[in-house]
Amino acid sequence: MARLSAILRLKRLNSLKGIYLRSTTNLPNIPNYRDYHSHDGAQDWWENRRNKRYLLLATGTIAGALLTWATEIGDSSVEAKEKYDSDIENHHKTIRKDLPTYKIEEISEHNNEKTGIWVTYGIGVYDVTDFVPKHPGSDKVMLAAGAAIDPFWHIFQQHNTPEVLTLLESFRIGNLNPEDQVSTKDMGDPWSGEPRRHPILKPAAQKPFNAEPPPSMLIDSFITPNEFFYVRNHLPVPEIDEKTYELEFEVEGVKKVTKMTMKDLKKLPRHTVTAVVMCGGNRRSEMDSVKKVKGLFWGPSAVGNAEWTGVKLCDILNKLGVKSDEVRHVHFEGLDTDPTSTFYAASIPLAKAMDPRGDVLLAYEMNGQPLSKDHGFPVRAIVPGTVGARNVKWLGRVYVSSEESDSHWQQKDYKGFSPSTDWDTVDFSKSPAIQHMPVTSAICYPTPGEKVKVENGHITVKGYAWSGGGCRIVRVDLTCDGGNSWHVAELEQEDLTKAPAGRAWSWTLWTAKIPVPNKAKEVEIWSKAVDSNYNVQPESFENIWNLRGVLSNAYSRVKVKISG
Amino acid sequence: MARLSAILRLKRLNSLKGIYLRSTTNLPNIPNYRDYHSHDGAQDWWENRRNKRYLLLATGTIAGALLTWATEIGDSSVEAKEKYDSDIENHHKTIRKDLPTYKIEEISEHNNEKTGIWVTYGIGVYDVTDFVPKHPGSDKVMLAAGAAIDPFWHIFQQHNTPEVLTLLESFRIGNLNPEDQVSTKDMGDPWSGEPRRHPILKPAAQKPFNAEPPPSMLIDSFITPNEFFYVRNHLPVPEIDEKTYELEFEVEGVKKVTKMTMKDLKKLPRHTVTAVVMCGGNRRSEMDSVKKVKGLFWGPSAVGNAEWTGVKLCDILNKLGVKSDEVRHVHFEGLDTDPTSTFYAASIPLAKAMDPRGDVLLAYEMNGQPLSKDHGFPVRAIVPGTVGARNVKWLGRVYVSSEESDSHWQQKDYKGFSPSTDWDTVDFSKSPAIQHMPVTSAICYPTPGEKVKVENGHITVKGYAWSGGGCRIVRVDLTCDGGNSWHVAELEQEDLTKAPAGRAWSWTLWTAKIPVPNKAKEVEIWSKAVDSNYNVQPESFENIWNLRGVLSNAYSRVKVKISG
Repeated sequence: MARLSAILRLKRLNSLKGIYLRSTTNLPNIPNYRDYHSHDGAQDWWENRRNKRYLLLATGTIAGALLTWATEIGDSSVEAKEKYDSDIENHHKTIRKDLPTYKIEEISEHNNEKTGIWVTYGIGVYDVTDFVPKHPGSDKVMLAAGAAIDPFWHIFQQHNTPEVLTLLESFRIGNLNPEDQVSTKDMGDPWSGEPRRHPILKPAAQKPFNAEPPPSMLIDSFITPNEFFYVRNHLPVPEIDEKTYELEFEVEGVKKVTKMTMKDLKKLPRHTVTAVVMCGGNRRSEMDSVKKVKGLFWGPSAVGNAEWTGVKLCDILNKLGVKSDEVRHVHFEGLDTDPTSTFYAASIPLAKAMDPRGDVLLAYEMNGQPLSKDHGFPVRAIVPGTVGARNVKWLGRVYVSSEESDSHWQQKDYKGFSPSTDWDTVDFSKSPAIQHMPVTSAICYPTPGEKVKVENGHITVKGYAWSGGGCRIVRVDLTCDGGNSWHVAELEQEDLTKAPAGRAWSWTLWTAKIPVPNKAKEVEIWSKAVDSNYNVQPESFENIWNLRGVLSNAYSRVKVKISG
Repeated sequence: MARLSAILRLKRLNSLKGIYLRSTTNLPNIPNYRDYHSHDGAQDWWENRRNKRYLLLATGTIAGALLTWATEIGDSSVEAKEKYDSDIENHHKTIRKDLPTYKIEEISEHNNEKTGIWVTYGIGVYDVTDFVPKHPGSDKVMLAAGAAIDPFWHIFQQHNTPEVLTLLESFRIGNLNPEDQVSTKDMGDPWSGEPRRHPILKPAAQKPFNAEPPPSMLIDSFITPNEFFYVRNHLPVPEIDEKTYELEFEVEGVKKVTKMTMKDLKKLPRHTVTAVVMCGGNRRSEMDSVKKVKGLFWGPSAVGNAEWTGVKLCDILNKLGVKSDEVRHVHFEGLDTDPTSTFYAASIPLAKAMDPRGDVLLAYEMNGQPLSKDHGFPVRAIVPGTVGARNVKWLGRVYVSSEESDSHWQQKDYKGFSPSTDWDTVDFSKSPAIQHMPVTSAICYPTPGEKVKVENGHITVKGYAWSGGGCRIVRVDLTCDGGNSWHVAELEQEDLTKAPAGRAWSWTLWTAKIPVPNKAKEVEIWSKAVDSNYNVQPESFENIWNLRGVLSNAYSRVKVKISG
């Protein structure tokens, strides 16, 4: 990658907060950066400023991650990092002389709605009573009510962003008695076990690590190479010793707990299933560009298609005497934990797990290799056709229960809502947890703003399409004249014997040659996929917008420049 | 119903052909008629002409049916019928002195593409060579190549419309030698066995009978009464004697044919499943209003929800030793036939039939009553979650095969295509037969143009929503300000124990109270449903348009007037 002479700066541009990279060159070859153009009007801004050699990198939670990345490649980025620190990151380390000082005993009394909810961070004391009901993870905030949030944010480092820190400071009511300050220095570094990642992965967050490959590389192969497969971690990657690893199985109402070692698991019949895993927030940045959402700033590459090998979950459950029924659920509990020892968990309907055509695996191999640390070593759940969040990694326990998982990620996240539902009105109990994903497609080549060559009056467009629940993609339509004419793409997909009705778990890669209007200098390309239930993508993000930015499956729209 | 002093007239209004009713009153209370307003700009026309007391009834194939209906209620309609006849219906009975006369021997030589395709109707001779490739049932037209189409149209009376007859006359090349004329008088009347129908059913065609109830009545009950359940027949209703009835079962490659009488069937375990049956062309008239399609002019009521009782198909197939697999199909063959003794037929994947959670029935009861003649007496297939066309009525034979059914309705109809595919470019082999239906909803109250009362700033809107493949409806959103604000409807649906994940076969009825802007005189209400795969309806018909007008599941949009 080209070495840059760069200065990173934090700016406000009207209401737009962001980090900008100024380069001594025109930055022509930085695909990782260019993918963020379409955010919050950034593309326009970038167009306007192009001559001045500015480039908007990102806003929100991704900013920190990009700063880190930039540090590695730019000369002057340290200066920028310091500026960033001094602007925002020191608020909670600074005594506010206009405010009173509180002892921890006083603060600890404010631990519920009635007394008000106070927390501390650094030496700041904050009254977050009004904020808590609107917070995406308010149940988690309450764990720190009347106490320090430092140990939590030590793990959930996505909070260390200018936006969050600025918001926090707005709740400041005092200073913490210096003697009562909590240090996280002795907590050990929960991130010390993180593996090395391929530099192609573009981080949406560093801790926990969340990253995706560039779209144009994603569609280079029908099977996504392990190193390029997007990573979505919710907590630090746990250290697991395969030799002592045991996977627990428990059935509600049955006393006996069954434990299986890797050796036990590998004795059972091996099955290989080619399946997509897609993040519930894939393509969120496109929804965010219509109206701000809360969540990691994913592009279109929080998805991959791999060959997973392991044991069929129904084989094990059958051995344990479990009978399929319509009301029970299977919980998957991860070995990754937060400071309160809460583990990542999710559940799926038992009927899906017990259905031999459902192809749910406890997988220990990915594309013929043992699972890597980022992908759930040594065992993860693969639930084909189902949102990534239920494909639990670092599996510690499988539990058959009459209730859904009560985990944060099952109950308070990964659910869809009406476009008019906001953080004041949202009631997470009213929507079902996402399981099967809706039909989607994305244009991966060309990328936004790219100059595209016309050959015989046509341009070539490529991308992927996929639908959850085992639905096959039957057609992908492209237009570059706003829907006046549609062109059907050539599809690359598994043959029907490998992906029969209701069991099409792989994605479809597609290529289309579409005619462009004579003398056009710029066109907007749209893609829409149709699945075997003849469901089709919705047209616009406006009407499917939801406050968490999940299920972001509207038409993919990419504006490109035409060159002769 | 109010008695009308009416005159029916056939007119051309610019490019718009239609039948108009002129009344001495303002026709305020004729819901059956009013439902057609939105077709082809008809609503505007009706608005303009309202003071003159004109009302557009219908265009196209439905015209004849409405004429018949009007005959029953209007004084002067016979006059109109005569006018209609003399305008159009006599062309093929009239000698064209400007054209030559041909003997049947000459005509019979023109029976393929090379020699040209000629047909006769009445005393007209027609060269349809150019038309055949564009005809929805071109394989069927070829059965009459070089001969008379009279025996076919005797059955397929949907051809007796002004449009078709006008089109046919445009292909006229000569007159048939009078001695060679074919009479259908001795053919017997294939329609003599048609049952009496409830007058609430609004016909989209009479022969074969196709009719739907008014939308506002449809949503009056969660279970659709038998008499109000839409009827979609493809051929004359067959006469079947229950006492001698036998249902055949055959498995490809197995010599033995199993026959079961009604007594045999009723000895097997009884199952009741509550399931929607929906026509693949439901809501076609809304798609047609964007751009003309070929097909029956269905409103939003070609759907119903009933309790079906019968035998599980998997129980019988299991008894016959059939094992589920991923490549085979189950054919359903009806006892209804055309003049060439071709029976109605369709197929579904064997995996769906063998899945105990698929709930495929051979049903002999509908809402606790033996099946009526129109609904498939004595036995029909019920394939929950799957397009009506596969729920074959008057079942004669069930056949397990390695191939899909080769019937016209499986191979040359009931398939979706890109909006840019027309009758010149369509290749039916390129699209899969519709099985599971996509998510849809329809506003059934108020109806288009209706005056709606505002109470406390709100209007009440009602409708249904449904999704195929066993997907449950999880939300219905309403807006009357173009999507600026969305309002979530209250849902009436089966409880989760009766409709668990993947087995929600019933529909959802919904009611919403939505605020209307102050002083609004007219609003357009939109509904969109979201299913448990979080698939959502597409916004507009333009981008899902297809030449057959199937899968017409865009937002439901209804313009109403506001009264204080």
